Amino acid sequence: MKVEQCNGSRLWDSIMEIGQIGHVDSKDSKVGGCHRLALTDKDKAARDLFIKWAKEVGATSRIDPAGNLFLRVDGQDNQLAPIVTGSHLDTQPTGGKFDGIYGCLAGLEVLRCLYEQKIKTLRPIEVAVWTNEEGARFKPAMLGSGAYAGIFKLADVLNTKDAEGIRFGDELERLGYSKIMSEGFFPIHQYYELHIEQGPVLEAKDVDLGIVTGVLGMKWFQVQVKGTSCHAGPSPMSLRNDALVGAAKMITRLTEVTEQNGINSRCTIGEVTIPNASTNVSPGEVYFSLDLREASSEALQELQTKAFENIHQMAFQLNLEVTIKETWSLPPCPFDKDCLANIQIACEVSYPEISPCPIVSGAGHDAVYVSRVAPTAMIFVPSEKGLSHNECEYTSPEQLEKGCNVLLNTILRAAN
Amino acid sequence: MKVEQCNGSRLWDSIMEIGQIGHVDSKDSKVGGCHRLALTDKDKAARDLFIKWAKEVGATSRIDPAGNLFLRVDGQDNQLAPIVTGSHLDTQPTGGKFDGIYGCLAGLEVLRCLYEQKIKTLRPIEVAVWTNEEGARFKPAMLGSGAYAGIFKLADVLNTKDAEGIRFGDELERLGYSKIMSEGFFPIHQYYELHIEQGPVLEAKDVDLGIVTGVLGMKWFQVQVKGTSCHAGPSPMSLRNDALVGAAKMITRLTEVTEQNGINSRCTIGEVTIPNASTNVSPGEVYFSLDLREASSEALQELQTKAFENIHQMAFQLNLEVTIKETWSLPPCPFDKDCLANIQIACEVSYPEISPCPIVSGAGHDAVYVSRVAPTAMIFVPSEKGLSHNECEYTSPEQLEKGCNVLLNTILRAAN
Repeated sequence: MKVEQCNGSRLWDSIMEIGQIGHVDSKDSKVGGCHRLALTDKDKAARDLFIKWAKEVGATSRIDPAGNLFLRVDGQDNQLAPIVTGSHLDTQPTGGKFDGIYGCLAGLEVLRCLYEQKIKTLRPIEVAVWTNEEGARFKPAMLGSGAYAGIFKLADVLNTKDAEGIRFGDELERLGYSKIMSEGFFPIHQYYELHIEQGPVLEAKDVDLGIVTGVLGMKWFQVQVKGTSCHAGPSPMSLRNDALVGAAKMITRLTEVTEQNGINSRCTIGEVTIPNASTNVSPGEVYFSLDLREASSEALQELQTKAFENIHQMAFQLNLEVTIKETWSLPPCPFDKDCLANIQIACEVSYPEISPCPIVSGAGHDAVYVSRVAPTAMIFVPSEKGLSHNECEYTSPEQLEKGCNVLLNTILRAAN
Repeated sequence: MKVEQCNGSRLWDSIMEIGQIGHVDSKDSKVGGCHRLALTDKDKAARDLFIKWAKEVGATSRIDPAGNLFLRVDGQDNQLAPIVTGSHLDTQPTGGKFDGIYGCLAGLEVLRCLYEQKIKTLRPIEVAVWTNEEGARFKPAMLGSGAYAGIFKLADVLNTKDAEGIRFGDELERLGYSKIMSEGFFPIHQYYELHIEQGPVLEAKDVDLGIVTGVLGMKWFQVQVKGTSCHAGPSPMSLRNDALVGAAKMITRLTEVTEQNGINSRCTIGEVTIPNASTNVSPGEVYFSLDLREASSEALQELQTKAFENIHQMAFQLNLEVTIKETWSLPPCPFDKDCLANIQIACEVSYPEISPCPIVSGAGHDAVYVSRVAPTAMIFVPSEKGLSHNECEYTSPEQLEKGCNVLLNTILRAAN
């Protein structure tokens, strides 16, 4: 197998250029952060630039009804299902320049290499940009790839509203990203997604390449804690029924329980809301979000049971009422063996000196939904200090180049 | 001394009627809650009704530059400084129908009794309605009485903005409550404020009358906790630097420390803010409010020192940065001995069978600021279950009548 090489500095420059759209200055970050929520004007600007670049190297573009972009170069036999790679261009509110963006731009770099080297693979190749992966603006996350894979009904996706009540479908219309391809689904032969790890494992092991064998299952909940609000001054501490103090104890306990549970257990409280909050009112009602993750369905169920037991136990001790509502879930997702084998071989031929690290992803990715309808696997490169969803997110140009070379040679192998 | 009697059912009916302005249905409340933030259209409606009622019994109205209302009936010698009573008509977002409102309406009931009985006291009598006592809309609390007493500069009060950036002064203009009396301050001979206890002490002691010897000192702080935000999935629990988990542990610890500190120690966290919160982001930054109260300056300082030590200790243990900013304070306030003696005598003549309970108020009141410029004291009646700043706030018609009779006879004694 002939080994191809991408242009690492071109890849880096493109990531930096598209990262200017939504760039956020941050004195602690090497390259600045990025604030580019899904289906905003900034998201459109990034998508437009991406399409322009892809067309310059001979790709055609199409858009499905959920706003997912596909940039395609023909193969020798266009009746064959394509090899698809890609990721997303939207970010978290305090996002960086690499999460998602790297996977899209590495896909573009593959197209650029094929164009430059005049390589025509047997199968067509497409680079996908999935809509609203982050779930920061429209909940739940991964709406675009979920619509593509039939996890969500298209009508539901289009009717999803952001915190201000703006419809997903109306934003697609407004930005000119609606109904350009009549059908959503088309068959994919294999799907590969290249991504930053967003965790500290590869860095800790000092390995620049990770082969992702699967993704942690996850469940989202909204927890409501009810006590009795009272004025801050006149009520002795011992006679209070403070929902926030209860929530604080629950958060502390949940974190401890999860720490003790196992290496793959994750518990995150990202949002806390106190309705009608006031400095001198002891809160009578508090809401918090709860994100639980584990590697297998059984382990996830066990973690959930432990979490619920502890929440209810604490509520009972403190004479608080508690209601827990599941808002989203994603089962654990093992990836396809053939796809993993292709990545393994591409690693060996590109970097025989590196032993790539098998790793389970803690974060959800569009690859999880795509894996329901096509053989799928992922490649990781390290994240400095494990940071992501953070303005300080960083991966070096050399590491990005290594991941892209593995993607390039994986796709060439898969498409021929 | 002749003992006068107020009309308890008229007092109750008026409290219920004015409570319809901003009424909130609540299945757990006997009479419903009230949502009537300062200088909103609802606040204006309540003030307008109050003025109408006062004018019906011969009072004249004037408004000072901070929007404080004064409803005055002449005395035999109008050169003498008036006896003033009053409170506020604004509520917390989840307020009840009695906090503040009772003091104003009891003042009105005093005017109604004087009118009915054709009693003319030596000194004039005025009922005050102070603006923005709660501090729920415009911070800090007690802006109106603070402006009157010269604690705050008028220009600063008028420039205070609510969370939406609307100026206090602009709202006064809009509602027609600006500059109707040219000067703010006028001398007060004595000031009496009748209020619900807002705490559980009188109910626990089964005594319907409290003579308030002073008010707990209080300090407000904003605490900023900084860690490092990261993606909810890929970071093992042990490698996180979660600001919310830190804040939760601080809130738990602060509450414990305060519980152990003493009967008059209070610690309330009413507000928690996570900038750019997202369900699947482990928070890197959290703000929370801290309200500390104690009976003496020394005890308050000691409580603050303990609180700060514990916050900093926790931050050090968890590798978090912490910044604490004082946002407001009010020193402990002992009330005037002559005023307290007048109340004591009025209790004895009105209710010889009751031994009124001496009590320290945990909540701040307009009386605290007025006490800086005039001899002042307060009377308390019980709050059911100690609830206040809560839709279930309740005091029985009989208890309200008792407090009003004590106020009436206190004022008659003071004004003659």
